[in-house]
Amino acid sequence: MRFATSPSVARAAALCLALCPAVLAEEGMWLPNAIPAAELKSKHGFEATPAMLEHLQKSAVRFSTGGSGSIVSADGLVMTNHHVGSDMLAKLSTPERDLLKTGFLAKDRGEELRCPDLELNALWSIEDVTDRVVAAGKGAADTAAAGESRRREITRIEDESEKATGLKSQVVTLWQGGRYHLYRYRTWRDVRLVFAPETAIAFFGGDADNFEFPRYDLDCCFFRIYQDGKPLKPEHFLEWDADGAKEGELVFTWGHPGSTNRLFTADHVAHMRDVEEPMGLRRLWRNEVKLATFMGRGTEEARIAREDFFGTQNGRKSSQGLLDALQDPSMVAAKRAGEEALLKRLAGKPEARDFEEGRRLVRESLAASKRLSREPGWYLARMRGGTLAGTARTLVRMKAEDAKPSAERLPEFADANRRTLEARLYSPAPIYPQLEIERMSSMLSGIAEELGLDDPLVVKLLAGKSPRARATELVRGTKLADVAARRNPDPADPMIAFMAAIDADARAARKAWEDQVEAPQELGYGKIAAARFAAFGDSVYPDATFTLRMSYGTVKGWTTDDGTAVPSFTTLGGTFTRAESRAGDPAFELPKSWLEARERLEPATPFNFVTTNDIIGGNSGSPVVDAKGRVVGLIFDGNLDSLAGDVVYDVTRNRAVAVDVRGMLEAMRAVYGAGALVEEMTAGRKGG
Amino acid sequence: MRFATSPSVARAAALCLALCPAVLAEEGMWLPNAIPAAELKSKHGFEATPAMLEHLQKSAVRFSTGGSGSIVSADGLVMTNHHVGSDMLAKLSTPERDLLKTGFLAKDRGEELRCPDLELNALWSIEDVTDRVVAAGKGAADTAAAGESRRREITRIEDESEKATGLKSQVVTLWQGGRYHLYRYRTWRDVRLVFAPETAIAFFGGDADNFEFPRYDLDCCFFRIYQDGKPLKPEHFLEWDADGAKEGELVFTWGHPGSTNRLFTADHVAHMRDVEEPMGLRRLWRNEVKLATFMGRGTEEARIAREDFFGTQNGRKSSQGLLDALQDPSMVAAKRAGEEALLKRLAGKPEARDFEEGRRLVRESLAASKRLSREPGWYLARMRGGTLAGTARTLVRMKAEDAKPSAERLPEFADANRRTLEARLYSPAPIYPQLEIERMSSMLSGIAEELGLDDPLVVKLLAGKSPRARATELVRGTKLADVAARRNPDPADPMIAFMAAIDADARAARKAWEDQVEAPQELGYGKIAAARFAAFGDSVYPDATFTLRMSYGTVKGWTTDDGTAVPSFTTLGGTFTRAESRAGDPAFELPKSWLEARERLEPATPFNFVTTNDIIGGNSGSPVVDAKGRVVGLIFDGNLDSLAGDVVYDVTRNRAVAVDVRGMLEAMRAVYGAGALVEEMTAGRKGG
Repeated sequence: MRFATSPSVARAAALCLALCPAVLAEEGMWLPNAIPAAELKSKHGFEATPAMLEHLQKSAVRFSTGGSGSIVSADGLVMTNHHVGSDMLAKLSTPERDLLKTGFLAKDRGEELRCPDLELNALWSIEDVTDRVVAAGKGAADTAAAGESRRREITRIEDESEKATGLKSQVVTLWQGGRYHLYRYRTWRDVRLVFAPETAIAFFGGDADNFEFPRYDLDCCFFRIYQDGKPLKPEHFLEWDADGAKEGELVFTWGHPGSTNRLFTADHVAHMRDVEEPMGLRRLWRNEVKLATFMGRGTEEARIAREDFFGTQNGRKSSQGLLDALQDPSMVAAKRAGEEALLKRLAGKPEARDFEEGRRLVRESLAASKRLSREPGWYLARMRGGTLAGTARTLVRMKAEDAKPSAERLPEFADANRRTLEARLYSPAPIYPQLEIERMSSMLSGIAEELGLDDPLVVKLLAGKSPRARATELVRGTKLADVAARRNPDPADPMIAFMAAIDADARAARKAWEDQVEAPQELGYGKIAAARFAAFGDSVYPDATFTLRMSYGTVKGWTTDDGTAVPSFTTLGGTFTRAESRAGDPAFELPKSWLEARERLEPATPFNFVTTNDIIGGNSGSPVVDAKGRVVGLIFDGNLDSLAGDVVYDVTRNRAVAVDVRGMLEAMRAVYGAGALVEEMTAGRKGG
Repeated sequence: MRFATSPSVARAAALCLALCPAVLAEEGMWLPNAIPAAELKSKHGFEATPAMLEHLQKSAVRFSTGGSGSIVSADGLVMTNHHVGSDMLAKLSTPERDLLKTGFLAKDRGEELRCPDLELNALWSIEDVTDRVVAAGKGAADTAAAGESRRREITRIEDESEKATGLKSQVVTLWQGGRYHLYRYRTWRDVRLVFAPETAIAFFGGDADNFEFPRYDLDCCFFRIYQDGKPLKPEHFLEWDADGAKEGELVFTWGHPGSTNRLFTADHVAHMRDVEEPMGLRRLWRNEVKLATFMGRGTEEARIAREDFFGTQNGRKSSQGLLDALQDPSMVAAKRAGEEALLKRLAGKPEARDFEEGRRLVRESLAASKRLSREPGWYLARMRGGTLAGTARTLVRMKAEDAKPSAERLPEFADANRRTLEARLYSPAPIYPQLEIERMSSMLSGIAEELGLDDPLVVKLLAGKSPRARATELVRGTKLADVAARRNPDPADPMIAFMAAIDADARAARKAWEDQVEAPQELGYGKIAAARFAAFGDSVYPDATFTLRMSYGTVKGWTTDDGTAVPSFTTLGGTFTRAESRAGDPAFELPKSWLEARERLEPATPFNFVTTNDIIGGNSGSPVVDAKGRVVGLIFDGNLDSLAGDVVYDVTRNRAVAVDVRGMLEAMRAVYGAGALVEEMTAGRKGG
């Protein structure tokens, strides 16, 4: 890890700029219908036509498993990261066919493997519904009631839209509560695996090199969308620029950044630093060790828990990087200074009062969050005890919710979300009892660790047994591993009975959280957003929401705090050098396919590269496109400094990390014999 | 892990028996001067002569690094575990000579490597000083003052004894406060490394197989004691039984179990379960992940942090096993039932009131412990930030303490402890700045995670910097890596100044802990011990105190909850089978030396075995001797079920794990060409 020894000055400077948007080039995760056109034109001489923007928007897809991708051939081929596709690779694997280990290449379309529960979405249209949502909250008795009314109105809007258009419809809360947009998506659920390399090269360097650069990862994976049983003929797909990008070139990403908190108040950032992140890390440390221990038991245990484990490690490294940045005292200090500067700018205007009032509401929500997160009920509300436990909770609630009108249900059970919900709930993906016992037992003992074994809730959960004995009894006793049992749930099923017995408490805790934390926060940030708009106009981009965003930047290395210049590109040849320098560490062991293909690979071929694009988790799998909208790379990571990106973007050190098209094509041809696939992608408009 | 799905019944039964001692065979860590002679004679027809007991007592050695060993040749050869010697193996290693990886065999005595800071102690005499210590506490104003007086009296006794005899003198608190014994030790500080195998076979199976059985570990290591520059000619050393032990044979261990808590009240066990163990595990999970991450950075990082990492993993697996046992509701329930039974037995006697009063005092101490452990000062008191930070604290305190009379100092600075203290303080063992920064930065960010960055203590510790920046500044700035700088400490040294600035607060927190937790606990358990003695006589063995104890048991497998019978012995041949079944997992990769020697090894040779002996952490390296006092094995582990041994011994499932002499000798001869060493050990009285 290249930790800064004294990053305070640079970071504080970056942060000040972040509070005065549109000043700092290359920052921002821009809404597809509100890109910084003037900025792009004046600084880069770049102008996008509406047709081009629509083309890029409709070529981008969102993975239901969390991640981004793009359609890259006339036959519906979808490019994403290996680590985005890996969830499906795991679900398509068996003890005898471990796709994560061996990789996969369909020799022809007949061999492509249908994913059990993958949904891809492409953003088709956007509508501003702010007035309708805000109006619904007006006149409510209190903040909580206003929040509840807004939530119901959102469900109504989504249901209406879905019924009217047949398109998946979601209202997105932007600026943490400043605006509400209705997004409509094209949706595909017949998605098949076409190609994936071995994890050993996709995640070469493992946790050690994760969020680092230089890198040497073939973190790519290809799926194909099918419609009516045939490969999709998409209206829009990205073409390929096999020459890649040059040093300093202007490039764009179109993807789905998951979540950022840059508009958070200083109080809220301090709360993240002192409460949320430490709490999250404690959970991650615990899970990481428990999963590693489980995997150590045997080859099959290692296989079935690998996805969970990598996800946990990734979350831990990312959260640790963010906490490291937050624990620099200058971080919150700069936030506070920024707020004072904003208030000065708004002096005398009514929005200054909005800002103060917003800040107060947020503070109130933080106190509630701190209090509620220590209450027993909250452990029930956010309980995660594995797939069977989650399924049981869904079934218990679905039965109760389906008795109500859609708008009054918990949002995930509303009509508009039904198809997505059912696709997940009735997924034929394999479930492993030994891993389920591990998860459930870890969850139960975790609650006992927090509350003590004599707490009435713990007594109720354990029913006189040890956590492991109780988990074993529930997992061995339930029939929910069978999809048929989920379609016809039996209230006497032990896992369903277990969840039903605690559901009232879990719901109450969720409601308390929504009323006391989420509602005042949304209201507060709505007011703060109004103040920001008054000060800076519409040039303030909203925090990430796992919806489509555009970022722009340039291909560019950086200089570390100790003065080391990190170059922008690595090469295929460098991969072998790196492997040799770390010989003996399993994370740096190249797969046999690469060792055998070494002579066939042109060592100077660019493999990975960095850019100044402003991205974050969820952007994984985003295409990097050039000014002509052609693919030059595939986002798969950020550097360590990018982990502070949750709260601040710093152009001097924050870097996005991508696979270079040249390295990708060369490896597909020379290592995997995937020439047909390369041809399909590079054929462009001629293809199909 | 072979977790019990329904161990409640067996465990509750075992526990009830544990509360009625002398009923259950094979339980107990017996004082060397109070072995259960009648029991051994009646049940096993075994009688030990005083000469034999003295011989065994004086052949056993205690390692200052935490662990046990025994003198096994006429030339002062000492046998222990590889994992007990590994601390020295690490300190004797360099980037170019990694003894943990390659193993070590001195070709002749001239090649034996002197350890930088190892001290071995052999128990030479025991004196009961209970009356003197108890009298010192009488008439004190309150519990805290009584504790303080007892502590001072103990130091006086130790100082007097050391001055009078020249022997290292320590007063041991037995039965958690029921009795005080003065132990005098022969001490050796010139100890040299003779032989160690590779970690790959010493710790074959790694964390996955740790605390498990069947096992295949050559967990042994040999040192030699030197006196006046020449090999020690010991008065006592153990002879060897090259035929090993048979199934069902009566065997003994003589070693130094570190700590057990079997005499804890039910409240105290519940406190361990709900407060202490979860808190300890949280720290271990955090450290394990942080160390693994650090080690992932490179080969040298992996080398220098390995010892810490293995220690952390071992602590975590052991603590997790204990917590799993504690979280079975029947555990504390059985403890409570046992207390009620004891009270019934004492009904009408004054000791019943003693017991109640003792229990009340312990409860009081637990409340204080819970409260104090959340106070900022306590983070300072137990702060661990690496070797440099620890050295700085010692230097700061030594200066202040040396100005006082010995009995008024903090005990670790008293005259009697001076030589041990200085040996550690002025050790020439290598110190690695990058690891020190890691430890210090982890410690600082840990406190910030607990208290929040705006806590005045955290503000003081960080001095406006991030934890890593602050740690880097202190570690890079201090001169304390140099032994000369420790002998002549500079108050302006940044690490010393850092520790000096917080020392008053750290001392105050320690004092509060001693007064409010330790003092009432000692007093309370003194009363409880009196009650137990009244009920059961002297047949109650005291909890472990890292002093010499004898255990007896038989060579015997066990049956797991799912009905699997686990046999008593494994063989050398089984090692290769196990390695093949876990191919691909680095923890199961055999060293080259073994792969090459496979044909030369007799596969049927017994390698590891289990016995019913009652041992616990600290017993590692204890010799297993037969009824004639000859070595038949070397304790190196317990099974998973033994982890509950901290609070309860269960003869049906608790097993000690040992290396068999036959496997050890065969491997030393056939794999390592250590024939001369084998000859030296098996020569017995003829040798030397």
